[in-house]
Amino acid sequence: MAGDYLRNCWYKAAWATDLDAGHLARTILEERILFFRTQGGIAALQDRCPHRFAPLSVGRIAEGVVTCGYHGLAFASSGQCVNNPYGPITEPMKVRSYPVVERHSAVWIWMGDPELANHDLIPDLSFIDDTPKTARNYVYIPTAANYQLATDNILDLTHVDYLHPDTLGGPITGAKSRVFRRDDLIVVEYVNLDCEAPGIFQRKIPSPATCDYWVEVSWRAPGAMVLTTAAVPHGQPRRREDEVQVLHNMTPETRKTTHYFVCGTRKYRMDDEALSKVSREAVRNAFLTEDKPMLEAQQDNIGDADFWALKPLILSGDAAAIQVRRDLAKLIAAENAAV
Amino acid sequence: MAGDYLRNCWYKAAWATDLDAGHLARTILEERILFFRTQGGIAALQDRCPHRFAPLSVGRIAEGVVTCGYHGLAFASSGQCVNNPYGPITEPMKVRSYPVVERHSAVWIWMGDPELANHDLIPDLSFIDDTPKTARNYVYIPTAANYQLATDNILDLTHVDYLHPDTLGGPITGAKSRVFRRDDLIVVEYVNLDCEAPGIFQRKIPSPATCDYWVEVSWRAPGAMVLTTAAVPHGQPRRREDEVQVLHNMTPETRKTTHYFVCGTRKYRMDDEALSKVSREAVRNAFLTEDKPMLEAQQDNIGDADFWALKPLILSGDAAAIQVRRDLAKLIAAENAAV
Amino acid sequence: MAGDYLRNCWYKAAWATDLDAGHLARTILEERILFFRTQGGIAALQDRCPHRFAPLSVGRIAEGVVTCGYHGLAFASSGQCVNNPYGPITEPMKVRSYPVVERHSAVWIWMGDPELANHDLIPDLSFIDDTPKTARNYVYIPTAANYQLATDNILDLTHVDYLHPDTLGGPITGAKSRVFRRDDLIVVEYVNLDCEAPGIFQRKIPSPATCDYWVEVSWRAPGAMVLTTAAVPHGQPRRREDEVQVLHNMTPETRKTTHYFVCGTRKYRMDDEALSKVSREAVRNAFLTEDKPMLEAQQDNIGDADFWALKPLILSGDAAAIQVRRDLAKLIAAENAAV
Repeated sequence: MAGDYLRNCWYKAAWATDLDAGHLARTILEERILFFRTQGGIAALQDRCPHRFAPLSVGRIAEGVVTCGYHGLAFASSGQCVNNPYGPITEPMKVRSYPVVERHSAVWIWMGDPELANHDLIPDLSFIDDTPKTARNYVYIPTAANYQLATDNILDLTHVDYLHPDTLGGPITGAKSRVFRRDDLIVVEYVNLDCEAPGIFQRKIPSPATCDYWVEVSWRAPGAMVLTTAAVPHGQPRRREDEVQVLHNMTPETRKTTHYFVCGTRKYRMDDEALSKVSREAVRNAFLTEDKPMLEAQQDNIGDADFWALKPLILSGDAAAIQVRRDLAKLIAAENAAV
Repeated sequence: MAGDYLRNCWYKAAWATDLDAGHLARTILEERILFFRTQGGIAALQDRCPHRFAPLSVGRIAEGVVTCGYHGLAFASSGQCVNNPYGPITEPMKVRSYPVVERHSAVWIWMGDPELANHDLIPDLSFIDDTPKTARNYVYIPTAANYQLATDNILDLTHVDYLHPDTLGGPITGAKSRVFRRDDLIVVEYVNLDCEAPGIFQRKIPSPATCDYWVEVSWRAPGAMVLTTAAVPHGQPRRREDEVQVLHNMTPETRKTTHYFVCGTRKYRMDDEALSKVSREAVRNAFLTEDKPMLEAQQDNIGDADFWALKPLILSGDAAAIQVRRDLAKLIAAENAAV
Repeated sequence: MAGDYLRNCWYKAAWATDLDAGHLARTILEERILFFRTQGGIAALQDRCPHRFAPLSVGRIAEGVVTCGYHGLAFASSGQCVNNPYGPITEPMKVRSYPVVERHSAVWIWMGDPELANHDLIPDLSFIDDTPKTARNYVYIPTAANYQLATDNILDLTHVDYLHPDTLGGPITGAKSRVFRRDDLIVVEYVNLDCEAPGIFQRKIPSPATCDYWVEVSWRAPGAMVLTTAAVPHGQPRRREDEVQVLHNMTPETRKTTHYFVCGTRKYRMDDEALSKVSREAVRNAFLTEDKPMLEAQQDNIGDADFWALKPLILSGDAAAIQVRRDLAKLIAAENAAV
């Protein structure tokens, strides 16, 4: 079980706003964790009191301390017991504490050796911070499929022509694509110069006019992907300010369930909050009615089988996804070998 | 798992009308299968794209070809890939195709070696075709019990006096019964000359008048049973035209669930469609409120245990059911030995 | 499985009123049992016909005999078959019968060797019988947690200050407690002389007046606990007639589910039925909204793990619970060794 996941890395645990209530109980890599805000930041503790295994998340949280709602042991954000109503505080009175950081509007958690939890290893998603809030939208959708299936989905965009024909689909068929490495990223790019604009860009570039279309997805372990796309009237130059950038970030909850985070940003009409709301609903709707059912049907068909044992047919569009699966497998193997 | 079922035989997969929408996804012998109509007939394909394991049943079907809704691989009814949008069609681009035939108002599938799929082996249910449509009624009821429990139920009709006292029950107690072979069938017969008519025949032969009653069930592997019954005023001759013939056909979905198909026919008032509707509702109602709950309660009590390991008490009424279980076990053992 | 539970002892199976409908199907120690009233008393039979494993509880019960609703085998309260409609009654025609006794408003069942089922071993709960009916209240709450977690809950009353702060909590913090043996009981006592009265006693002794408070819990294997408590104005003598006595009785349904029985009695205002109703709702409400969710959350966090394998932290309040777990483990080990 431990060896199924990469552990020495930062996982997105939540959008920062998911902690607006002050705390959040969420399972990450099969471990139940309580997140709560403290004066200085955020704490992440194993959500199980060491006394009688009550979830700490049903206790009381105040001033950076969680008090178990069953018998009253209290723990600080370090995991150290700070109050035992029945006697002295002894050495085993503590719960596991996880390194946790708030950055890029999100809560990040380190599931491996705390000594290695270097903040510089958090994926650089400063494009979110650089976008005015009025031009961002956040989505969180729990999905009953392995996170690698969700990752494959974004790395092989040939699916949009079939799964999202009315909104995103169209330009991928006939596009030129290439897969390459850029720093520690694996990148896949599709470019179609002179095609009909996909549904979402039809208002901007209505048929029979044609467009120049590009989309790029970059992946960084364990599961942060940035998708950058635009369509401009055919022949116009490729400009950053026409682009939409969307984060797709997958975190394993269990082997068969995934925390799926999306953050859409754009470089145009950036003060138009109504447009952000429309965009958010469009993304959410496409995911809920098209991607999520497909991912969950795949997972259901795979069941408990190992993905590779089922001998998946390899198509050209799988190049990036397979490279990513191999990289991840190597990283996990290296981590397990080091233990 | 493979060895749990007889495979080289025809199973009823659906009533023909179940494909009125053009396609049907159904699990048979634990295998997920997509059935769809083609110009020439019906196709049955493994419901799993070999690329990323999406169910083909959520794809698009047109002109005898199913196109995967995820990345667009297309398969003909033979299972052969006929379109790869991303490159050449290679040898492994195919899905399993099952022999399938439409006959006797039903769709039949062959789950074993396709080379052995002889159409002559389909159970002869021409009594259905010989009955005018106005005198037939079809029922399909998925049942959460092993198909052999459902088979036992019909082979031991002593249950009707206890489980269906108000409709079918009564004449079995005191009837003479015998079990015999006829060609490749196992047959059980109950005859009661001079008894009160059961509930469903009371309008025809009201008490205190008595009737002559007979019922016969013939079984053919793996699970097609024809029940023939009638009640006539005591002393009248036994005539074919008084009889009702009902098909009970069980197909395993999984070890614990069964596709249960019923088709009622009669030899009298054959143009009375209203009567057919009444009969259908009576059969459906009895099954839904009496047989199905009992079969599911049995299965629930048995759980994962092996039926014989629980040492069932053998009563005289079990003779046919036990003969059938033995025959089926022999057929399955022979098939497994041949592999 | 068999070795998981103490078997040669009486378990509370039901409140007597649970059989008001004449019969009750309930799982005790993972065995499905049919309870039904006979002329002389109560019968408890394995709820599975030995013929085809139909639940006898869906059959017909009359005059101390249950007739299987499937094929009509009939069984007396001894488990002996008394009617086989199809032939002679043979030796294996019987179902397991359990010793069962009605006492203290409840139905008690012996799950082990029937020869050892001595009625004198039924826990003495005559305090219930000695209380007028108008001063008793009964509660039954099925709880999805191991019965030992439910037992621990009552044996460590330090939890009331945290889990029930508004009703029962308050006086335990600062109380003197001790654990001792009395006959075959393990007893834990908490006494707090001069404290604020807990919520439920505030009407009687409103703050800033203080009270003398005591509570005692006695446990007897396998799971009968009597909780005795009172609060009197500070300085007044400790009198029996001020006390409330509450039975907490846990019976395992499965490893992860418990039949939880409560019976509250009091020594004051004994003819006030309205008060009994209010008390019952208060107990029921506290349990449903506070104890039960906590016990089920604990069980959920423990999952399939062994309790001790998780290395629970031991606090001073656990003394009685741990003694009880040890006693029970010894009794079970002795029973298993004797087999």
